[in-house]
Amino acid sequence: MAQKPSIPKGTRDFGQVEMARRNYIFDTIKSVFCLYGFQQIETPAMENLSTLMGKYGEEGDKLLFRIQNSGEKAALAPEKGLRYDLTVPFARYVVQHREEISFPFKRFQIQPVWRADRPQKGRYREFYQCDVDVIGSNSLLGELELVQIVEEVYRRLGIRVCLHINNRKILAGIAEVIGAPDKIIDITVAIDKLDKIGVEAVNAELAERGLSEKAVKALQPILNLAGTTAEKLTALRTILVNSEIGLKGVAELEELFGLIEATGVQLNIELDLCLARGLNYYTGAIFEVKALDAQIGSITGGGRYDNLTGIFGMPDVSGVGISFGADRIYDVLTELDLFPKELQSATRVLFATFGDAELHYALGWAKALRAQKIAVEVYPEPTKMKKQMGYADAKQIPYVAIVGGDEMAQNKVMLKEMASGEQKLATLEELCTIL
Amino acid sequence: MAQKPSIPKGTRDFGQVEMARRNYIFDTIKSVFCLYGFQQIETPAMENLSTLMGKYGEEGDKLLFRIQNSGEKAALAPEKGLRYDLTVPFARYVVQHREEISFPFKRFQIQPVWRADRPQKGRYREFYQCDVDVIGSNSLLGELELVQIVEEVYRRLGIRVCLHINNRKILAGIAEVIGAPDKIIDITVAIDKLDKIGVEAVNAELAERGLSEKAVKALQPILNLAGTTAEKLTALRTILVNSEIGLKGVAELEELFGLIEATGVQLNIELDLCLARGLNYYTGAIFEVKALDAQIGSITGGGRYDNLTGIFGMPDVSGVGISFGADRIYDVLTELDLFPKELQSATRVLFATFGDAELHYALGWAKALRAQKIAVEVYPEPTKMKKQMGYADAKQIPYVAIVGGDEMAQNKVMLKEMASGEQKLATLEELCTIL
Repeated sequence: MAQKPSIPKGTRDFGQVEMARRNYIFDTIKSVFCLYGFQQIETPAMENLSTLMGKYGEEGDKLLFRIQNSGEKAALAPEKGLRYDLTVPFARYVVQHREEISFPFKRFQIQPVWRADRPQKGRYREFYQCDVDVIGSNSLLGELELVQIVEEVYRRLGIRVCLHINNRKILAGIAEVIGAPDKIIDITVAIDKLDKIGVEAVNAELAERGLSEKAVKALQPILNLAGTTAEKLTALRTILVNSEIGLKGVAELEELFGLIEATGVQLNIELDLCLARGLNYYTGAIFEVKALDAQIGSITGGGRYDNLTGIFGMPDVSGVGISFGADRIYDVLTELDLFPKELQSATRVLFATFGDAELHYALGWAKALRAQKIAVEVYPEPTKMKKQMGYADAKQIPYVAIVGGDEMAQNKVMLKEMASGEQKLATLEELCTIL
Repeated sequence: MAQKPSIPKGTRDFGQVEMARRNYIFDTIKSVFCLYGFQQIETPAMENLSTLMGKYGEEGDKLLFRIQNSGEKAALAPEKGLRYDLTVPFARYVVQHREEISFPFKRFQIQPVWRADRPQKGRYREFYQCDVDVIGSNSLLGELELVQIVEEVYRRLGIRVCLHINNRKILAGIAEVIGAPDKIIDITVAIDKLDKIGVEAVNAELAERGLSEKAVKALQPILNLAGTTAEKLTALRTILVNSEIGLKGVAELEELFGLIEATGVQLNIELDLCLARGLNYYTGAIFEVKALDAQIGSITGGGRYDNLTGIFGMPDVSGVGISFGADRIYDVLTELDLFPKELQSATRVLFATFGDAELHYALGWAKALRAQKIAVEVYPEPTKMKKQMGYADAKQIPYVAIVGGDEMAQNKVMLKEMASGEQKLATLEELCTIL
């Protein structure tokens, strides 16, 4: 026999059980998005390479999967690549379709992205992103709704989380007041790693990135700020008193926390000044969600951006968005055993098959049950009872209906509950009620 | 300003309205699949090129999108390509995962495929396929269930269709009795075009493909067979009396039509001897569905295959499947104006925003309504009434709730029905009832 076929490194097949679980995650997230008036869009898997290049840094450019042009006109056709995330295609979409869009534009998008990363545990070359954004409004109601969406999604999934919030304007203010306003990017990239590498390594990195000893020293009280959110914000007002942008960031956070309190959001929320997020298009609030009962890093993240569409020639459009990490949420639900038990099979009953007459009888019942929207299977051929029961077991079908001459004469079936092994005769009406 | 960005030729963006409509199609199809116990799987967008090459004929090989390998080890990595259909990846999946699969394996798969075809009206380089198959059983119950699924899907979508059925064994038998048993492929490929190019062109093509004048002549009565299904089958029994495979095909169709009649399938079904389907892996029943009220060709098609997994070293596994053409179904529903009207926006009510106090009031109501699973939007900033109404119009939101001092004092909102323009004061309970 030939060698077993396989799939490319870093890609995955999803079988029925995994798909049922993935759909549970996607459906939960989608239905919450819809509750807030967000609508779905989709963009093509391939974009012109010119749309993608230069948007993810030098490292990102290298990780783009490129498509070979083929055919006679290959040399003339624009080069293409597979999308690397959903954010740049969304920006491209907004600019390309701006005449059709009614702003503020509330959209969500759930599609795979591809990265030619070195495959490793938990890192794939094809994975889904699940993004929700509102673009075309400066209102902090956008931020509030994303916080409410985080609350509701994780409440429905049963995952206890903490939402970390910061504001890029505060980070810019900090850079300003410690005397290193041009180092904002270096500072945010370095302190983003505080959790992972510790304060000393961050300080070393800051020095390496050209921050003066004085500036690094001035930064320390800010990195170590503690207390309640109100206390932190008050302290920041003092520290940032000479930075206009910093004070604006504080005011934005105060307003957002006010809205959060006014709407009674039930969620652990922490103002986390160490939160920076690597992506440099963020200009306002930034978010990250961590599961409290699993060590897995961020499972949702995002923020406010003021000029995402500027790269495509449409400046001054502000938006805010977050992205749910479906793979990590899957891992958390698995680790904490939180997937609903009844997910695997929609099928409620399998009709076992022993012969032609029984099969025709079963087909009639199956039709009646399906008309009641009850999912039913009829085993396709007469074979050993054990095999048919094994099939029901493997698919976790809760009931098997057995039909013989006696049952047909009485217009009933013998219904076996797989979990208990109990059997009883049932009419069609009784079956509908049980299922 | 920079040039407007665009997307690669032959690809598409799907905006909110299109996505809502596409989801309506996919959800309808999925829920019918689930009613029959089919379960979803997904496979990666990219497959090893060795999995894809040689499976779609020379022409198909040319239409594969290849991915460039990058990085240091590029020359060593296996070449990859984007999937061309869902059938070959499914066969690969079955062989690769055979130890985990419990047969008969009932799966469906809804994912995009890519073909480097010349883009033209209605033909895209990226499009979704929607496949349902049962593999690992010879039972004609598989065929019956697909017929029932076709009936139920188009009943739910409201599209009147005709299901054309034939059997490849009958076509093989015909090739045998007209004395051209080695020409079965040429015959099926040519008569597949009967509807499009007419009988004379088909006869010319048959001659060109090396069929003797005698054989072409012998074929004519078969091409012109008329009458009821029973009459056609009876005539075929006579014509194919000397062909074992031909008679087996007739017997299979008789059994299938028997099952269809016994289960009371309400569907226009035609035994169509001109139906051949181009793909040569079919070995038994073949199907094609045409819309009765739109000229658009086949909107669903498929058939029985006896050795799909043989290409990957796992012989003798029989299956049967069909594929729904989502793009064409979309076009039929559009042409016949059959999409439900309420699809576009899930949002039932928009709260207009005039100031901070009103906003906070609206946020409380929005929270209460969302807890009742009613989709609600709050306009994010105080702006002109006209703009806010325009937003509701564009998203087809049926109600706008207006809040002023009077309403807040009475703990009510002024509810405007957008279609009629009627306004009335409503309490929260009244609002829940109306929405």
